[in-house]
Amino acid sequence: MRPLSHPAVKDITVEGILHALSDPVRVHIFARIAASSATHTCSTFLNVSEKPIPKSTLSQHFKILRDAGLIRSQRQGVELQSVSRCAEIDTRFPGLVGAIIAAHAVQSKARRPARKRVSVA
Amino acid sequence: MRPLSHPAVKDITVEGILHALSDPVRVHIFARIAASSATHTCSTFLNVSEKPIPKSTLSQHFKILRDAGLIRSQRQGVELQSVSRCAEIDTRFPGLVGAIIAAHAVQSKARRPARKRVSVA
Repeated sequence: MRPLSHPAVKDITVEGILHALSDPVRVHIFARIAASSATHTCSTFLNVSEKPIPKSTLSQHFKILRDAGLIRSQRQGVELQSVSRCAEIDTRFPGLVGAIIAAHAVQSKARRPARKRVSVA
Repeated sequence: MRPLSHPAVKDITVEGILHALSDPVRVHIFARIAASSATHTCSTFLNVSEKPIPKSTLSQHFKILRDAGLIRSQRQGVELQSVSRCAEIDTRFPGLVGAIIAAHAVQSKARRPARKRVSVA
């Protein structure tokens, strides 16, 4: 089994963070991990969006978050347990991750009522 | 000549901003436009990176910034004059653009001494 790799804080790049957090599903996953001090497994997020997400896609999302330095994962049996590295990133890029999560929250809040109107019409 | 299109503030997306500002050259261009109240033409930035950038590539960078809602451009003769839309974006996504520009500044500052050491050795 391949060991999990995590970039050192000094090797975390703005480009990597922006790419990882440009996908709404990944931001949603990351925001939930970052909001809690508990560890999270992939399967917690099978129903994170309106359509169920295949486990292979979720694993890929977690890998992108891990490679970008946003989460730290550890194998426990057959599952990966992940925690946020937000505090570490904040020492290098203050306020960056928080501003992106907040912007996504504004955007999804603005989109929700529009969707409802479409389904009612 | 095709008219220039600019998204309305409500149609500006986090994904579009993150994509546009995930490229170091585009961030550099945008940071310079955002730091000044004057308008800027593409040709101001021909020597923005270590290697001169072809004008066609610069035009493409400006188009991506414009499509993301980050700048507003206007034709004046054969040139495009562009200004930042940072203030408009801040009303929708407070602090987002500033945090990204600041993070890129931290990163390029950290990379600069390493480059110098390599050229001296």
